[in-house]
Amino acid sequence: MSRQLPTLGIDIGGSKVAVGLVDSAGRVVRRGSAPTPAQEGRDAILATIRRLAAEVRADQPIAGVGIGSGGVISGGVVTAGTGLLSGWVGTDLVRHVAQLVGGAGTGLPVTALNDVHAHGVGEAWCGAGAGRDPVLVIAVGTGLGGAVIEGGRPMAGAHGVAGHLGHIAARAADGLPCSCGAIGHLEAISSGYGIVQLFHRLGGEPTVRRARDVADRAGSDSYADLAMQKSAEALGAAVGDMINIIDPEVVIISGGVTGAGSSWWDTLRATAASAALPLVAATPIVPAQLGADAGIIGAARSAQDPADR
Amino acid sequence: MSRQLPTLGIDIGGSKVAVGLVDSAGRVVRRGSAPTPAQEGRDAILATIRRLAAEVRADQPIAGVGIGSGGVISGGVVTAGTGLLSGWVGTDLVRHVAQLVGGAGTGLPVTALNDVHAHGVGEAWCGAGAGRDPVLVIAVGTGLGGAVIEGGRPMAGAHGVAGHLGHIAARAADGLPCSCGAIGHLEAISSGYGIVQLFHRLGGEPTVRRARDVADRAGSDSYADLAMQKSAEALGAAVGDMINIIDPEVVIISGGVTGAGSSWWDTLRATAASAALPLVAATPIVPAQLGADAGIIGAARSAQDPADR
Repeated sequence: MSRQLPTLGIDIGGSKVAVGLVDSAGRVVRRGSAPTPAQEGRDAILATIRRLAAEVRADQPIAGVGIGSGGVISGGVVTAGTGLLSGWVGTDLVRHVAQLVGGAGTGLPVTALNDVHAHGVGEAWCGAGAGRDPVLVIAVGTGLGGAVIEGGRPMAGAHGVAGHLGHIAARAADGLPCSCGAIGHLEAISSGYGIVQLFHRLGGEPTVRRARDVADRAGSDSYADLAMQKSAEALGAAVGDMINIIDPEVVIISGGVTGAGSSWWDTLRATAASAALPLVAATPIVPAQLGADAGIIGAARSAQDPADR
Repeated sequence: MSRQLPTLGIDIGGSKVAVGLVDSAGRVVRRGSAPTPAQEGRDAILATIRRLAAEVRADQPIAGVGIGSGGVISGGVVTAGTGLLSGWVGTDLVRHVAQLVGGAGTGLPVTALNDVHAHGVGEAWCGAGAGRDPVLVIAVGTGLGGAVIEGGRPMAGAHGVAGHLGHIAARAADGLPCSCGAIGHLEAISSGYGIVQLFHRLGGEPTVRRARDVADRAGSDSYADLAMQKSAEALGAAVGDMINIIDPEVVIISGGVTGAGSSWWDTLRATAASAALPLVAATPIVPAQLGADAGIIGAARSAQDPADR
């Protein structure tokens, strides 16, 4: 019975909070979003969640609430963050959100997981990974993160840290600073800011500040061509290594950079295939399908499926 | 009832076939082994298994049979090999071994998995990973392989290929050939043959042919010192990256190279800790505890636990 009820999915990112009512087939039947009051502290973020949840839920009975949030999530608590969400570390997401949505003490399932893990669960459930297992999802946005989804569940690791693909060594990123403070990580060359950073390092126009603009200059600006190529090669080499380690049935790439054009994709795929062992060299590498909804769909899924909790 | 019966574990490697009767607590209560007739083809290997299984089992009722074998195992079948076992690719391990041990048609559970995966299951169950989850096991022998054990089960991937840690890029292995035919893989610098190869490349004594001998020369041969250091650094950098990707509760290193001495371990641990994110930089990196028994114990475990099949 309750399986037929929709689940509330909440996606808490550095720039936006999105809430959706997700049915048992993964369709978002009602949604709402608002800018994250990221610098106003925990109470302001929770108030935004409460307002959106009330609007989206209305009087609809729900089967549960799933929360995806930026930061490292372990045992329902935000145990570490990236600085994007002020005052967020230490928040007991499950407890707070259960209170906000009236679920505390009612037995309504409330679960919390990292936002990239939620995103991955969504794509694996009913996006580009539907029917495939395991699934490797790599989110290439301003930063770069990943999730390995096996049997519908994200690998979280012992501390919720699993999937930090942005913070592995990439030889082409030599000397390039990473958001984490280290030098030479994959994120420092293959994420949105990594592409811009590399473009400038190569000698590209200093006023260009967005990865999209670097991508748009490709074909008419040799610095942009080289930046896009080296960024795709670095990502492809890492994807090939990950294929040998994880052996996913499909690799899904999500985020703005996936619109970079066929040359970027061709380079990524060729580099990954040459780094992968022969038995897995044909592992498909495809763009994500759910767009911004992946986070709320995956968060909802984690609350829908008892095995995911 | 049947949970109290021992399980037969079979470990099929390139040099040795080991069979053991493993009780429900992971103790090997009876064991036998013989050289693998690796170049004599499938029937010779199966005959060796049958003989050892009959000797070890005697008239003991068993709960099931678990098989760990070199090569890539998928759906109970050897789908790819390393060339160490002649004629082994294509072998339906579950079907053949069920016949050999009289299990065909009797409902006796027979399972098969990769030998490094079996080894990892054993260490995670009742070796250096007991009570930890997930567990990353890295087997550093002649070659280099790995296994990620989550909830007691090995991650096998879509084709049984998961865990091929030896075949990821290692920058310090630049120019060094790998057993897989590629250049620059981790195995080419951090495995047993990798250490020897590096030692020779650096200018070490050409007549030295075993990693153990390179390790023994450390302290009195600067080529050996450098080879051991660079090998440990390359492994440590990869372990640090793996910690960021998998977030294991413990990393277990097994194989002969783990006897290389405290300098090798210190370098490995320091390099891994500096590559890992702060939240997981203290992840323990420890030697394996079960020695050569890990394979039969883990293989047996896979047949004992229905969730592992």
